[in-house]
Amino acid sequence: MLDPDDRTLHGYFSRDRPPALTVRPGDTVTFRTLDCWWSAGRYAGEPVPDRPRVPQYRDGYGHALTGPVEIEGATPGQTLEVRIDEVVPAAWGTTVAGGWPSGPNRRYHLEHDGVVHAWDLDPVAMTGRNQHGHTVPLRPFMGVMGMPPAEPGEHSTIPPRAHGGNIDCKELVAGTTLLLPVPVDGALFSVGDGHAAQGDGEVSGTAIECPMDRVTLTFGLRDDFPVSGPVARTGDAWLTMGLGDTLDDAAYAALDAMFALLERLHGVRRADAVALASVAVDLRVTQIVNQVVGAHAVLRDGALTTGG
Amino acid sequence: MLDPDDRTLHGYFSRDRPPALTVRPGDTVTFRTLDCWWSAGRYAGEPVPDRPRVPQYRDGYGHALTGPVEIEGATPGQTLEVRIDEVVPAAWGTTVAGGWPSGPNRRYHLEHDGVVHAWDLDPVAMTGRNQHGHTVPLRPFMGVMGMPPAEPGEHSTIPPRAHGGNIDCKELVAGTTLLLPVPVDGALFSVGDGHAAQGDGEVSGTAIECPMDRVTLTFGLRDDFPVSGPVARTGDAWLTMGLGDTLDDAAYAALDAMFALLERLHGVRRADAVALASVAVDLRVTQIVNQVVGAHAVLRDGALTTGG
Repeated sequence: MLDPDDRTLHGYFSRDRPPALTVRPGDTVTFRTLDCWWSAGRYAGEPVPDRPRVPQYRDGYGHALTGPVEIEGATPGQTLEVRIDEVVPAAWGTTVAGGWPSGPNRRYHLEHDGVVHAWDLDPVAMTGRNQHGHTVPLRPFMGVMGMPPAEPGEHSTIPPRAHGGNIDCKELVAGTTLLLPVPVDGALFSVGDGHAAQGDGEVSGTAIECPMDRVTLTFGLRDDFPVSGPVARTGDAWLTMGLGDTLDDAAYAALDAMFALLERLHGVRRADAVALASVAVDLRVTQIVNQVVGAHAVLRDGALTTGG
Repeated sequence: MLDPDDRTLHGYFSRDRPPALTVRPGDTVTFRTLDCWWSAGRYAGEPVPDRPRVPQYRDGYGHALTGPVEIEGATPGQTLEVRIDEVVPAAWGTTVAGGWPSGPNRRYHLEHDGVVHAWDLDPVAMTGRNQHGHTVPLRPFMGVMGMPPAEPGEHSTIPPRAHGGNIDCKELVAGTTLLLPVPVDGALFSVGDGHAAQGDGEVSGTAIECPMDRVTLTFGLRDDFPVSGPVARTGDAWLTMGLGDTLDDAAYAALDAMFALLERLHGVRRADAVALASVAVDLRVTQIVNQVVGAHAVLRDGALTTGG
């Protein structure tokens, strides 16, 4: 169990940070993670702004990450395979809308009208219930999974990057395998920003943000499946993700990766991949709130069959 | 049955066009429609560019629309309710990628590399199979359903508008009710552009384009449900649609309508609607190919429960 502590907790991505653990390809690691406000315990009912952070927090830090995990033998050019075995939320979480002047809140005109929804989470029934009596099904996943940029120094956790980070894709639940291009020797993978439930878009800027009691991941390295950005195999679909300064750019990046995947999976050339994607691929909004926005293309199993 | 003929076929929206049929609220109308290339018959295997158009086609026309249907008593400010009872495709359809220099093809660099997929459609098994042996499930819907702008004259069918038109939302299948703001007296509703199957995004610019053997719609008028753009109630979800010059604008427009819907359905104020949408609403790309692009927000039944 990799617990959040002095050795493992960090609020930035950096290739210079020494690994908290070194594993081999094929190894499984279980993490515990703080929520995005660097909160670890169960402070149900306490207002978020006054919630105590852990002592490891420093001004300027982003998400509370646990790690990094070095994967022996990982080198740039390879693909890191992260099999998501389990994601078990703590018993409470929070969602915030408005109350800060950036991001979508500007467009919603909510600057002076912030609300906090405090959720009691039931990880057995897989439901969450807030203080107003709203109930939602849970579908827990990690908002941040990724590796540091190739450049040295400390890098913000806020914008997602080609090699992962603050992806915030709600499809990355247990049973999914995430593929990322390795940017640095040893991969130096970190995880944080637990979400108990989120819609496509994460439109307020927060999901149900929660600590995770247990996040179990199995790491692999692949030389036979090059990717230029995040790609995922869920229980019933392939996903390609695109990032950009605008949703249009993100959407075309996700599509470009999907066309390449269709070429690989179905042995078609690019123009045929475009035609087939138009019929069988769903283009969705991942998140609109992380400075760099995200879109993903989904090819559901059964949406397209070749031959037979 | 409103068949495509001299009286009903048109390739533009205009409040000046005399209605082909006048009905009362509550009435049901069955249409037959041409495909987007103005083709009516079954010319399986024939290449699209040489396919004969019907004599009613004129240069400069957009989609082949059947209608318009006047709904007695409809006035601007009301909401037109279109219950989609059945959508039955013809036995063949086509998908094109590349081959014309506009829209997404520019970004895919497919200008000189167009392909046509010719699909045999089985409306009983609800599958389509193209000449390369690819098979997809069918989910037929009408790409264009809408009313003319308030301004007189002829208006292109290509860009979707608040009062409908070339929406291209794949969720508008049989069993769905579409709500649109009425722009002109009598509503003057037209329909066309049948799609046997399409992914979110319609990324090549075409779905499986097909004539429809039967499109049955029931019209209603509502004074108690004002909408500012397309809203739909599907078999298991509420949808709000947004349009814009960019996907970002379209996404925020769809969200704005969803927040209003959440206020109505769940009795919450705006900031709470934003927080709940972040957890329970999915933001998706409708289409990126119609000059004006579209996004839609989806609130699935069971994604959010109030009280209890």
